[in-house]
Amino acid sequence: MRPLFHPAIEDIRPEAILYALSDPERVAIFTQLVAGCGVTCSALAYLGERIIPKSSLSNHFKVLRESGLIRSERQGVEMRNQSRCAELDERFPGLIGAILTAYGQRPGQPKAD
Amino acid sequence: MRPLFHPAIEDIRPEAILYALSDPERVAIFTQLVAGCGVTCSALAYLGERIIPKSSLSNHFKVLRESGLIRSERQGVEMRNQSRCAELDERFPGLIGAILTAYGQRPGQPKAD
Repeated sequence: MRPLFHPAIEDIRPEAILYALSDPERVAIFTQLVAGCGVTCSALAYLGERIIPKSSLSNHFKVLRESGLIRSERQGVEMRNQSRCAELDERFPGLIGAILTAYGQRPGQPKAD
Repeated sequence: MRPLFHPAIEDIRPEAILYALSDPERVAIFTQLVAGCGVTCSALAYLGERIIPKSSLSNHFKVLRESGLIRSERQGVEMRNQSRCAELDERFPGLIGAILTAYGQRPGQPKAD
């Protein structure tokens, strides 16, 4: 099984973060991870009333991971994911908060449907 | 000549802003507009030591304009562009500042080469 790629904090580029968070589905996934650490992929197959196909979900996680927004860890057949918010906020102060606020969501307070 | 499309401030979507600013060339152009209002297209053909082809430049301006980041106005054969920072900062507090800071650039202080 291929190892999962995670950029070192100093290699994270703002353009990759902005690109990753320019997709509202990825923002919704990321917001759930910010709200509650360690969510598994399968627990995230529903976003509101929409079902995200497993292949799209897995691609969303890859983009989030490779941009440096989340950390993923294989646990048996599951993948556990958590946000890298704390690290990111040191490197890019205020960036993630401003983005989530702009989407009408604050860290820890997913948008009510 | 087709009229230029500018979204109303309330129609500006965070995903369009993030996508527009996920390209470092567009960020460099936008930063110059934030620094000095009313720059013309042709004055922006150089970014540092790189020359941006006219066709790419015109596409960058279109993406910036249609995402709501800049306002463009035809003046004879020239196009004058200015950032919509003030409006944007009311709608999405802190967002543009955090993004430009993340790129190592602050509004009004373009990165020194």
